[in-house]
Amino acid sequence: MNIALLPGDGIGPEVIAQAVKVVNAVAKKFNHKITFEEAPVGATAIDLTGDPYPDSTHQVCLRADAVLFGAIGDPKYDNDPKAKVRPEQGLLSMRKQLGLFANVRPTFTFPSLIHKSPLRLERVEGVDFVFFRELTGGIYFGEPRGRNEQGTKAFDTNVYTKEEITRLARMGFEAAQKRRKLLTCVDKANVLATSRLWRETVQELAPEYPDVKVEYEFVDAVAMRLIQWPKAYDVLITENLFGDILTDEASVISGSMGLMPSASLGTENKLFEPIHGSYPQAAGKDIANPLATVLSAAMMFDYAFDLKAEAQAISDVVNKSLAAGIVTEDIAEGGKAFKTSEVGDWLA
Amino acid sequence: MNIALLPGDGIGPEVIAQAVKVVNAVAKKFNHKITFEEAPVGATAIDLTGDPYPDSTHQVCLRADAVLFGAIGDPKYDNDPKAKVRPEQGLLSMRKQLGLFANVRPTFTFPSLIHKSPLRLERVEGVDFVFFRELTGGIYFGEPRGRNEQGTKAFDTNVYTKEEITRLARMGFEAAQKRRKLLTCVDKANVLATSRLWRETVQELAPEYPDVKVEYEFVDAVAMRLIQWPKAYDVLITENLFGDILTDEASVISGSMGLMPSASLGTENKLFEPIHGSYPQAAGKDIANPLATVLSAAMMFDYAFDLKAEAQAISDVVNKSLAAGIVTEDIAEGGKAFKTSEVGDWLA
Ligand SMILES: CC(C)[C@H](C(=O)O)[C@@H](O)C(=O)O
Ligand SMILES: CC(C)[C@H](C(=O)O)[C@@H](O)C(=O)O
Repeated sequence: MNIALLPGDGIGPEVIAQAVKVVNAVAKKFNHKITFEEAPVGATAIDLTGDPYPDSTHQVCLRADAVLFGAIGDPKYDNDPKAKVRPEQGLLSMRKQLGLFANVRPTFTFPSLIHKSPLRLERVEGVDFVFFRELTGGIYFGEPRGRNEQGTKAFDTNVYTKEEITRLARMGFEAAQKRRKLLTCVDKANVLATSRLWRETVQELAPEYPDVKVEYEFVDAVAMRLIQWPKAYDVLITENLFGDILTDEASVISGSMGLMPSASLGTENKLFEPIHGSYPQAAGKDIANPLATVLSAAMMFDYAFDLKAEAQAISDVVNKSLAAGIVTEDIAEGGKAFKTSEVGDWLA
Repeated sequence: MNIALLPGDGIGPEVIAQAVKVVNAVAKKFNHKITFEEAPVGATAIDLTGDPYPDSTHQVCLRADAVLFGAIGDPKYDNDPKAKVRPEQGLLSMRKQLGLFANVRPTFTFPSLIHKSPLRLERVEGVDFVFFRELTGGIYFGEPRGRNEQGTKAFDTNVYTKEEITRLARMGFEAAQKRRKLLTCVDKANVLATSRLWRETVQELAPEYPDVKVEYEFVDAVAMRLIQWPKAYDVLITENLFGDILTDEASVISGSMGLMPSASLGTENKLFEPIHGSYPQAAGKDIANPLATVLSAAMMFDYAFDLKAEAQAISDVVNKSLAAGIVTEDIAEGGKAFKTSEVGDWLA
């Protein structure tokens, strides 16, 4: 197995380094030959090549069996609305060029961390749902977009085809069949033409999955219910922009943001990344929590290689590190806080 | 003063009726002559006229000094993506035709209800912020929108002009000056052309309000921080769609959703409404909580008539009803639950 390593910006390189240690340990234990090929992305790639997702990096991803990605983003680009190149453009063109149309974002709880949740215990205990966010369409890529000549008017286009909705929705239906058999389609069908196509398409697919109960909810209602009663959800499907907002909202409810992994799946390519950002304030300090990246590597063994035992071994050792308190300062309690690299060594 | 009454659908008529009792009591006590003119809107108006915002209703609003609005929405329209007329269209054309470009949505806590918040006490105690949501632009109204000929592709357009952003942003800046002097501009400037125009416009205005500190945050980050640490916010400004999602998310954090009022302001017209929906399951049962509508009437005295004492009198009596437990079943505890109409009578 050949893994493309894209550490990216901020704490990306540090957390990816720990995942590599763990993947190597798994390779050794289970007798796999795993090779890595590293490539720059994001602000790092801009500094090196002027392009946040250079073609050389794309080639590395194409020839890999899976991509392990750190984080992207540098504050020096954030407050400059006129910047020509932005690190985030690298993320977007990577998703588009690799055809990663489905972002899989599970939310679940770790009993030892649940008291860190901003929600009251009874609301969050046992929460277990997963978002399937469409990742290569919608207003992120729709044309036309830009300004009028005088620069006094700006516009973006949200666009979806039935095919784009269908392939994402089928993933959701199939996941629901393996879980609690509830699918929630999140849209704004009372306002948007694109949302009405989403709702219509899901309604047409539903009879093919008779064991799955389908619910339709408006995005504003879901933004509320995710906090009020997150246990109500099982599998949620939604478009790119709604997914961006709601998956981030969802990520804080478990109290374990630093542990949440994700997968971005396409027909040919598969990418795995922690959901946290590049956290520039912590970069280079060896204090970032590597667990989300390590659990993303577990998802990689599961989704990209179909190696369940290997994935399980990683989840198990993460749980052991939590139980033993071998954790970074963000989740250390009472006891000693360990460095990023120390946690990685212990896990490996 | 002449008030247009638009009860709308579901529980709308019941809660509006209580606000009318309270407004009449205030008129009597403070010696004002207040008249009401009622008009249909929403599903109710479709049933009567085929149009969710008929011109006759618009005329009633135009000649009024303020509009008091209940709620709109009927589930019979929700799961029919092909329905030709939708009640919500009435709401949208009302906003557009009345030029209600700023939706003012305060979030604050009532000490006696704070234990109903889904958030832990320390996170929500003392929360006090207000959203200014742009209400007549963006993807809600942008053209083109619709389908391709075969119906296999749908599209919506998000569009903003500098003027639209400026007038909303100025309201936010002015509100911040009267409050804790922090303004958060919520956008997605790392992806959207419209958001970059928002950020640029706000950056240009900022020097005119040197006493206000301005922060720029991405919508996904705000979706998180609203739950993690809502006390961080004072005044937030944002576009229509982000505002829809975030104000609803915000509405549940205080535990007092049934009490949250709102104002929708334009240059000529002003509308006041509870933020809760039409709650069709409760319609006609005399159980709906009228306090949000009553507090919207308080906002009306304040924002439309600049009558602070009258507004305060209403807030005071609402607080008294909470203290005395004269409340509907959704917030009654231990003691007896009162009917919608009983709460209205008591307040009046
Ligand atoms: C950085 C940004 C472009 C990106 C997005 O909006 O998709 C991020 O928020 C994410 O969710 O991965
Ligand atoms: C009913 C719907 C069209 C409306 C909106 O999205 O604006 C509602 O959610 C609101 O926030 O008032």
